[in-house]
Amino acid sequence: MRAAIFRDGDIVAGELADPVPTDGQVLVKTLACGICGSDLHAAKHAHHMVDVSVRMTGKPRFDLKRDVVFGHEFVCEVIDYGPRTTKALKPGTRVCSIPVMRVPDGITGVGYSNDFPGGYGERMVLTESFLIPVPNGLSTDLAALTEPLAVGVHAVEMARITGDEVPLVIGCGPVGLAVIAALKLKKIGPIVAADYSPTRRELARKMGADIVVDPAEGSAHTAWARHAALPADAKPVAPIMGSQVLTKPALVFECVGVPGVLQQIFEGVPRGARIVVVGVCMEPDRTEPMFGISKELNVQYVLGYTPEEFARSLRLIAEGQVDVAPLITGKVGVDGVRNAFAELGNPERHTKVLVEPWR
Amino acid sequence: MRAAIFRDGDIVAGELADPVPTDGQVLVKTLACGICGSDLHAAKHAHHMVDVSVRMTGKPRFDLKRDVVFGHEFVCEVIDYGPRTTKALKPGTRVCSIPVMRVPDGITGVGYSNDFPGGYGERMVLTESFLIPVPNGLSTDLAALTEPLAVGVHAVEMARITGDEVPLVIGCGPVGLAVIAALKLKKIGPIVAADYSPTRRELARKMGADIVVDPAEGSAHTAWARHAALPADAKPVAPIMGSQVLTKPALVFECVGVPGVLQQIFEGVPRGARIVVVGVCMEPDRTEPMFGISKELNVQYVLGYTPEEFARSLRLIAEGQVDVAPLITGKVGVDGVRNAFAELGNPERHTKVLVEPWR
Repeated sequence: MRAAIFRDGDIVAGELADPVPTDGQVLVKTLACGICGSDLHAAKHAHHMVDVSVRMTGKPRFDLKRDVVFGHEFVCEVIDYGPRTTKALKPGTRVCSIPVMRVPDGITGVGYSNDFPGGYGERMVLTESFLIPVPNGLSTDLAALTEPLAVGVHAVEMARITGDEVPLVIGCGPVGLAVIAALKLKKIGPIVAADYSPTRRELARKMGADIVVDPAEGSAHTAWARHAALPADAKPVAPIMGSQVLTKPALVFECVGVPGVLQQIFEGVPRGARIVVVGVCMEPDRTEPMFGISKELNVQYVLGYTPEEFARSLRLIAEGQVDVAPLITGKVGVDGVRNAFAELGNPERHTKVLVEPWR
Repeated sequence: MRAAIFRDGDIVAGELADPVPTDGQVLVKTLACGICGSDLHAAKHAHHMVDVSVRMTGKPRFDLKRDVVFGHEFVCEVIDYGPRTTKALKPGTRVCSIPVMRVPDGITGVGYSNDFPGGYGERMVLTESFLIPVPNGLSTDLAALTEPLAVGVHAVEMARITGDEVPLVIGCGPVGLAVIAALKLKKIGPIVAADYSPTRRELARKMGADIVVDPAEGSAHTAWARHAALPADAKPVAPIMGSQVLTKPALVFECVGVPGVLQQIFEGVPRGARIVVVGVCMEPDRTEPMFGISKELNVQYVLGYTPEEFARSLRLIAEGQVDVAPLITGKVGVDGVRNAFAELGNPERHTKVLVEPWR
């Protein structure tokens, strides 16, 4: 099959053997697969990613000397079944799936793996029990946004929202935009969102942000504080060991994922703020704990989503509760992936690029 | 008055003018004041502490060119009253207080201040409305442990305990020991505690730790996992995007407060762990966010306590619910503070040293 392959630190178009479905697996044709910021990070920081996986689990996530096919935001079509499958879905059925496989010793990822090529290739194998049919009438392109939306849905679920928070979303790439959409569904706000890019700020508005901020024109936290101010007649919270808090509770989503952003947030937020780290920073980071301590901050790191949140995200798109169409800014075949990786660095040009390996 | 003064980066014994109580303030004689690890950190990292306060509040916490008298764990005796006071407590009454003052523009600290000398001096002024009488029969020495116990009580309150957690306390200095005592009152466990010092491990047992670990003999996290293991017939939690979690929920208290400890915890804990940062690390710190992200960790930074928690801590000591006597390892006068700062670096020798400025 044709695939965009991560090989020797670069993305190259090439030929690979078709994967073969084993027990419980299904052979599928990739219809569309989004390029995720994590794939760009992984390509840039592959050695660190492998190093961390070794230190965390005792084994490398993948072998950098062998080929890897990225792609974990896919919509596929059922082609054929391996042994021990129920074959409940007819060949030709369009499906989504969480990008993980059941394997004899547990579960393993699709796309960041030498064994299970992701959606940048023409064919994949998936675990049958994880497949979810794409609802009739929902386009393949929109269904491909299920996975990134699920990231936002999960981040908001993990935020322990009580209802009186005023959220601030730092970074309006696909992750930040998904968080904004998920926050809008919770009906809390005003939702304040910050990004240097005018295009991204416009998308943030479309996804539900009530206030958008250009950090080049002034601190996002100052803008947030203006919109989160307590009414003039409210009794301010005065924690005894710190300064008075004159705003509603701060709930900040870090959706950038590069070193230094967390410390900026530590410095900008009021006392008692909760910070949800959704951006995937693959490098070591530096913070000054005194800011966290003095303000009694809470930092919730999040990753991925539950199968339920994934399925819910597909329904939200299918039912029109979230319109993800504006996020799709381009489509490429296998040959275009390398260039798309480069172009995705420009937020004015692209938000979500879909790979169509069959092209 | 005589006082141990922080001057030009050193602790020196000297004479200062007696403080004069103004509106709402009481003049007190210091009976005893514990030396806190934060005072040692502050002496060592005074410039960074001032720098952070400027960046956080716009003004320096204190002027390093002027004298500062540390000491915020004090028991005092009422001597005299300033204007606009109720004079409800007779002179001679022993009192504790949270180490903060009401001032016209809000509140300010006692002990880390040029204006309000702390308990390393013979006299202090305190805000009348914050005074709590020491219950009859409770010794001054034990009452002086109210403040450090309150730090542990607050940290445990902030931990959002549900009851099924197995706690791990990293570092068994006064902060860790107070956390252990507060955990014991919550009746959760087993309480696992780790410290390199045999003396501190023995104290941890006395304060309520069920298992003590010497990290030099093996990872505290490995020991924790052994004692937090789910029963053999339990259904392990299997989050879809990570590895199986085979233990009860992890609740780790960071009670060391030096750079690098948080990252060690990030590496050692299981998925979904909650970390409460109680140690006051005054230097910048480095973590690898990928560990936090991949494990969906939660980090709650805490500081101080509420007035209610402070008052409760005094009651816990007075009622004999927490025996803090083993923590007191020495007493010094004003002249002995400088040497005590040096000796407190040795955990075999000292845990809590009380300053008695009247000596």
